[in-house]
Amino acid sequence: MVADKETYSRHISHKFNEELSGLKDQLLTMGGLVEQQVADAVEALINADSGEAQRVRERDYEVDQLEVGIDEEAVRVIALRQPAASDLRLVMSVIKMVADLERIGDEAKKIAKLAIAIVEDDAVQPRSYVEVRHIANHVRGMVRDALDAFTRFDTEAAFSVMREDDAVDDEYKSAARALMTHMMEDPRNISGCMNQMWILRALERVGDHADNLAEHVIFMVKGTDVRHTPVEEVEQVLRKHDE
Amino acid sequence: MVADKETYSRHISHKFNEELSGLKDQLLTMGGLVEQQVADAVEALINADSGEAQRVRERDYEVDQLEVGIDEEAVRVIALRQPAASDLRLVMSVIKMVADLERIGDEAKKIAKLAIAIVEDDAVQPRSYVEVRHIANHVRGMVRDALDAFTRFDTEAAFSVMREDDAVDDEYKSAARALMTHMMEDPRNISGCMNQMWILRALERVGDHADNLAEHVIFMVKGTDVRHTPVEEVEQVLRKHDE
Repeated sequence: MVADKETYSRHISHKFNEELSGLKDQLLTMGGLVEQQVADAVEALINADSGEAQRVRERDYEVDQLEVGIDEEAVRVIALRQPAASDLRLVMSVIKMVADLERIGDEAKKIAKLAIAIVEDDAVQPRSYVEVRHIANHVRGMVRDALDAFTRFDTEAAFSVMREDDAVDDEYKSAARALMTHMMEDPRNISGCMNQMWILRALERVGDHADNLAEHVIFMVKGTDVRHTPVEEVEQVLRKHDE
Repeated sequence: MVADKETYSRHISHKFNEELSGLKDQLLTMGGLVEQQVADAVEALINADSGEAQRVRERDYEVDQLEVGIDEEAVRVIALRQPAASDLRLVMSVIKMVADLERIGDEAKKIAKLAIAIVEDDAVQPRSYVEVRHIANHVRGMVRDALDAFTRFDTEAAFSVMREDDAVDDEYKSAARALMTHMMEDPRNISGCMNQMWILRALERVGDHADNLAEHVIFMVKGTDVRHTPVEEVEQVLRKHDE
């Protein structure tokens, strides 16, 4: 009887670990997909490729399905396994991160929609989109780094992502100012510039969500909620010994 | 012994119910606060009252503290009480709704910041802000209705909120078009109009978050995730008998 019980609880704990790593894998799959969506949407803009932009919009369905599936699985794991301490924090972090990833997917979809509007607007001159390209690379790197930090339970890497967000905000402000000047120079530019302004804004939001992802990684590893916490205090949290 | 055990489990279940209703109360407190923040930010704009706008920005700290506190309490309840079925759905919904409320608070803070920029910009003519006022009332009503639906476990009321969101999107688009025209007429209007454009956008986002709140209420009551679900299918979910 005892042996049976032990076998049973070993079996349960094995299943549980499988479920936890399944959740992690699904989150990373979703993360890879939304990062690709951002990349493809920006490429579609730069190449004036409205077919590709349309495909990005359609693929958002896959992002949404992943969100619903992971959420369902996470709630099932909580109900069935009643995880405690660090396991519970892992599941809670996955639930929070999924919401941010879904929103990154939404921003990619918005960029794709705006790309189509720009491609179809004859008044818009071909442009190099230097700033868009630059900020897009920056925020995609942040998303990737936040997901890497999640995989490796690496709070230092997560903290680096949080610090990057201020740089993105500055880049966004400077690009937005340049667009405003361009609009003032010639009102015929207004409609095209507005669409680019919304694209910059969407990319800046992707940076915000990457910042959130990093905060959730720190919560998962350290058990401390560092949202709304000044950078110096976050540093103190990271210096704390693990619980 | 048996009597003791019964007393004990009655005590536990009494405590648990108290904790659940405590969570609900805190969520409603936070909801009331962010709705007031939106109202005050828009009033500050209309009355060109940068002092009030500044107070809105500072009060966002209270919103953030509520978010962190409710989240902490919700995770504690899950860890300690291991709720199942509808109780777990309630706690999960609270966690999701808190995130949307915090973002509504963020939008109010943005509006307050933009109101200050507008008040301090001498080039901006005094305006009546008809559209801003109208959309603000609309989305504040949605937030209130979603919270009422939450209190009363009322999925029909939640569904009404979801349907309102399309109307808000139309109002936003029409107001944004009017601002674009105003910018094209006179480039000197561009900077002031851009600030108003961001305010409209923030209000439209408040409507999106109210829509999310309503979706979480339906999940809480029906156990079905209706995000990313066409309206007709949501109706079918609501027609289903309760589980």
